[in-house]
Amino acid sequence: MAPSSRLSSRLPSAVTRYLPVLDWAGRYDRDKFSGDLVAAIIVTIMLIPQSLAYALLAGLPPEAGIYASILPIVLYAIFGTSRTLAVGPVAVVSLMTAAALGNLGDQGIDYVTAALTLAFLSGAFLLLLGVFRLGFLANFLSHPVISGFITASGILIATSQLKHILGIKASGDTLIEMLHGLWSGLGQINWITVAIGVSATAFLFWVRRGLKPLLRRIGLGPTLADMGAKAGPVFAVIATTLAVWALGLADRGVDIVGAVPQALPPLTMPSFNPGVLSALIGPAILISIIGFVESISVAQTLAAKRRQRIDPDQELIGLGAANIGASLTGGFPVTGGFSRSVVNFDAGARTPAAGAYTALGLAIAALLLTPLIHFLPKATLAATIIVAVLSLVDFSILKRSWHYSRADFTAVLVTILLTLALGVEVGVSAGVLISILIHLYKTSRPHMAIVGQVPGTEHYRNIHRHDVDLHDAILSVHVDESLYFANARHLEDRIYDMVAERDDLKHVILMCAAVNEIDLSALESLEAINARLDALGVKFHLSEVKGPVMDRLKCSHFLDQLTGCVFLTQHRAVQTLCNARTEHHRPSKDGVSL
Amino acid sequence: MAPSSRLSSRLPSAVTRYLPVLDWAGRYDRDKFSGDLVAAIIVTIMLIPQSLAYALLAGLPPEAGIYASILPIVLYAIFGTSRTLAVGPVAVVSLMTAAALGNLGDQGIDYVTAALTLAFLSGAFLLLLGVFRLGFLANFLSHPVISGFITASGILIATSQLKHILGIKASGDTLIEMLHGLWSGLGQINWITVAIGVSATAFLFWVRRGLKPLLRRIGLGPTLADMGAKAGPVFAVIATTLAVWALGLADRGVDIVGAVPQALPPLTMPSFNPGVLSALIGPAILISIIGFVESISVAQTLAAKRRQRIDPDQELIGLGAANIGASLTGGFPVTGGFSRSVVNFDAGARTPAAGAYTALGLAIAALLLTPLIHFLPKATLAATIIVAVLSLVDFSILKRSWHYSRADFTAVLVTILLTLALGVEVGVSAGVLISILIHLYKTSRPHMAIVGQVPGTEHYRNIHRHDVDLHDAILSVHVDESLYFANARHLEDRIYDMVAERDDLKHVILMCAAVNEIDLSALESLEAINARLDALGVKFHLSEVKGPVMDRLKCSHFLDQLTGCVFLTQHRAVQTLCNARTEHHRPSKDGVSL
Repeated sequence: MAPSSRLSSRLPSAVTRYLPVLDWAGRYDRDKFSGDLVAAIIVTIMLIPQSLAYALLAGLPPEAGIYASILPIVLYAIFGTSRTLAVGPVAVVSLMTAAALGNLGDQGIDYVTAALTLAFLSGAFLLLLGVFRLGFLANFLSHPVISGFITASGILIATSQLKHILGIKASGDTLIEMLHGLWSGLGQINWITVAIGVSATAFLFWVRRGLKPLLRRIGLGPTLADMGAKAGPVFAVIATTLAVWALGLADRGVDIVGAVPQALPPLTMPSFNPGVLSALIGPAILISIIGFVESISVAQTLAAKRRQRIDPDQELIGLGAANIGASLTGGFPVTGGFSRSVVNFDAGARTPAAGAYTALGLAIAALLLTPLIHFLPKATLAATIIVAVLSLVDFSILKRSWHYSRADFTAVLVTILLTLALGVEVGVSAGVLISILIHLYKTSRPHMAIVGQVPGTEHYRNIHRHDVDLHDAILSVHVDESLYFANARHLEDRIYDMVAERDDLKHVILMCAAVNEIDLSALESLEAINARLDALGVKFHLSEVKGPVMDRLKCSHFLDQLTGCVFLTQHRAVQTLCNARTEHHRPSKDGVSL
Repeated sequence: MAPSSRLSSRLPSAVTRYLPVLDWAGRYDRDKFSGDLVAAIIVTIMLIPQSLAYALLAGLPPEAGIYASILPIVLYAIFGTSRTLAVGPVAVVSLMTAAALGNLGDQGIDYVTAALTLAFLSGAFLLLLGVFRLGFLANFLSHPVISGFITASGILIATSQLKHILGIKASGDTLIEMLHGLWSGLGQINWITVAIGVSATAFLFWVRRGLKPLLRRIGLGPTLADMGAKAGPVFAVIATTLAVWALGLADRGVDIVGAVPQALPPLTMPSFNPGVLSALIGPAILISIIGFVESISVAQTLAAKRRQRIDPDQELIGLGAANIGASLTGGFPVTGGFSRSVVNFDAGARTPAAGAYTALGLAIAALLLTPLIHFLPKATLAATIIVAVLSLVDFSILKRSWHYSRADFTAVLVTILLTLALGVEVGVSAGVLISILIHLYKTSRPHMAIVGQVPGTEHYRNIHRHDVDLHDAILSVHVDESLYFANARHLEDRIYDMVAERDDLKHVILMCAAVNEIDLSALESLEAINARLDALGVKFHLSEVKGPVMDRLKCSHFLDQLTGCVFLTQHRAVQTLCNARTEHHRPSKDGVSL
């Protein structure tokens, strides 16, 4: 046993639970170190342009992107459970940050402090969810809604970057506002910027498709070729920066990154102004949930490949710590990113230490390399973003959901349209709401069928689907759903409808084989049905009630009031009631086993 | 066949659907007329003080209460489906109106116009729900939450009226604000008002308990005695009005109703100011839903007693029309009231024509009787309200839900506490939200069990509850819930956990007997489970899939990807897989009937 394993086994379990770092740090060896270091170098090279670009997308100064990738990575390495997740600014969260800050209005604080506050609130919310083990809340975002949201966000993000490619001023949170801004700005197009932006975009698309095969052809191994292709954006950054510097293009209207402080991340504080906090808490919650969902799906995908496990509640703590870290060191909301994590994984990262080395690399870059990006044109960063996010756009979810279920299709379509038309916050909120409403609607009208006996068997089936035997005095109803407040009234209505105009009816049996729960509202409806049938001279019975449901019913007075019995099986119910009729006596409650 | 039955049978069904009046008006006869007329006279006498009181509760001039009971009653008689529901101002909706108007702030319109606008928005929302047949939305308010909300509202309403009993000025929407206001106002107590208020309250409580037996003892028949008791509040009104007038108490600080216009309801218009509309739409929706839920439960209770049916979607249209009517004739939001409907029913109303006669009676009262209530003390109206609403307060729902289910108890408790502490709007919104969240939480962690064969039978049961036979190579898992986005990830996690450390495992069978639906998110999870198990060399099978679920699965590619089979029964699945193992060949997909 390694020394630190012994250490961790001596620590209280709460400590090891909240500090997954104790689990792997003790078994760290040279082999893992070399894997982690190589991955860290590659990820660092990839992150420099990406971080700058996402800061631009969030509407923040470029250095904020680098700062948001240093302390957060280290904190996630300590508190997170994924071995290979890379935390930092990501496209969708950066867009949501821009939307949240843009809607803030005049609260008397600057944009940078507002971003810190958003990261702080998001971190605090994630920590809270993690400590109270509420990670399941993220499940209320259905997969199709997430797919639709990501696709629509990708379109919004790409559109938002066109102004940098064209060299014009424009703003807006929705597709229409953005397109309108672009249209009005067409007169001010800077053609040099367009030349840089379009060639950078074209180059980056080519890098995605063509660079790796080229590198293979000139003799590089598959891994090296892959890594070279991943570093493609760096070539674009270097080439366009040099061009702007050498040709003096900044004086000819090309928008550049400009002066970036040559320093380690500063110590910063979020605002605790109540007006700001209350304005940002809603967006912070949405950002946290979207960020968590994105991060956990990346983390689980990668963990599955190496048969590792992710603890969703501890992931909330890891991401929460990362965001608090971002708010204290000049960053903005962060989460686990898909592309950077995949690169980290493919490059051979073995433990979260790779993240720590990446943070070190970025800190060195912040100290030494920032003067070099003074002349970096924003058009190049915009090209980086556009090429990255267009891979998120995937309308196939519409086709897929259309074929499978109109309800899911509706949720996806509404999410996409509202995200494009009204922005990310409305879009994702509507997606969650409509998913939940559709679920409630579906379960609020459960499938109910009158059933009869399949001749010669003990099976009971829908009278509309099978040739079955029926008894005049007995109505057997099967309900295909748990009974709860949203369908309690429907249950009452349907049973009253079925009973109406059946003058010869003496018994109604409700088959509960598919009823996994009966809540208090549904219990009251069952009591109402029992009383109403009693007034009509009809007895009400239940059959095939599941154990946990029966346990619950025994806590109420319903079984005392029930005019009929609870039968173990539907067949026994029908047999008992038929025999009782021919023998002219009532079935006794005692004679029926539960 | 009566002439108008023939008429209605010749009309397009859409007309008869939207105009239930056509259904009963043609068969109207003298017998029904006399029943309706007697009921209308009694209800009119009861409604005069009640309408004035609820206008006071809503913070409106007293005549608004009478106006809100005239046209709305007529419109409901035309469009509603209940034969005996009496529509007008009710306590809870009046309190919600006061809260909504109090929170409006300075929008540049007067309180009366704001009330008209609220009624208009509420009516429009109800009509919309009715036309689109969305009445099921009201089901999202669970019975326990409604009980808790009504109880808390009753306490709030009674507390809000104490200021009139004490003759002091106070305001507030929440219990704490109200108590604080009463405390600060204690110095200004008007003892004459207290004397009137307390004796009116005591008298009205006695009327409820003691008047009917007294009337019986002096020789009245049971029906007349009952009606006499219902008219009790009118005695209090007359006695205190006379006392105030004769003794000149208005000059000694007793707050009186004052001048009430002697006129029919005026023609009024709601405001269409966008600021006002957007401020009132939220409260209007809450008022509509609460009003609809209250109204429909009264209507259904009464209809059931005479074996009549209520159409919830048409009820929305009836109540919507009534509220639009209220907004056009100087009223405020109305709904079907419990006490007035019961009185109407008990007094022998047979058709909605009784409502029309009540409206006529109130119109006459508005024209002729209003000068007589000039000296009516507000303390008497407050006493009427207090005695009426205290019958709404019923904490037994807390005990009942505590015994049956902690989840329902939590929802009720949160609703009561938030309604008292933060007001009606927050309270009822929180109640709806928490009901839905609890439902989602419960279904997000479905009960899953590993099952085995009960020896000698074809039954499969939970290994933790029964002595069952298991096969080393086969893991059979039963899931007790429909599979949808909220539990899709949980399903994945649980199955991966069950499979971990089972090196000898070759087959996983998911028993779907209780699965009523698989949505697209859950389908994706099943695909992920299938792929993950495949990577582990384990085949994934389904058993006992229901017909509609299977139909849906056939619309996807899942069945093509599935490494295993879909079996009709769990027993056949286990038999097939065991035989296949002993005979050393794979079960063929074709060999299995679906």
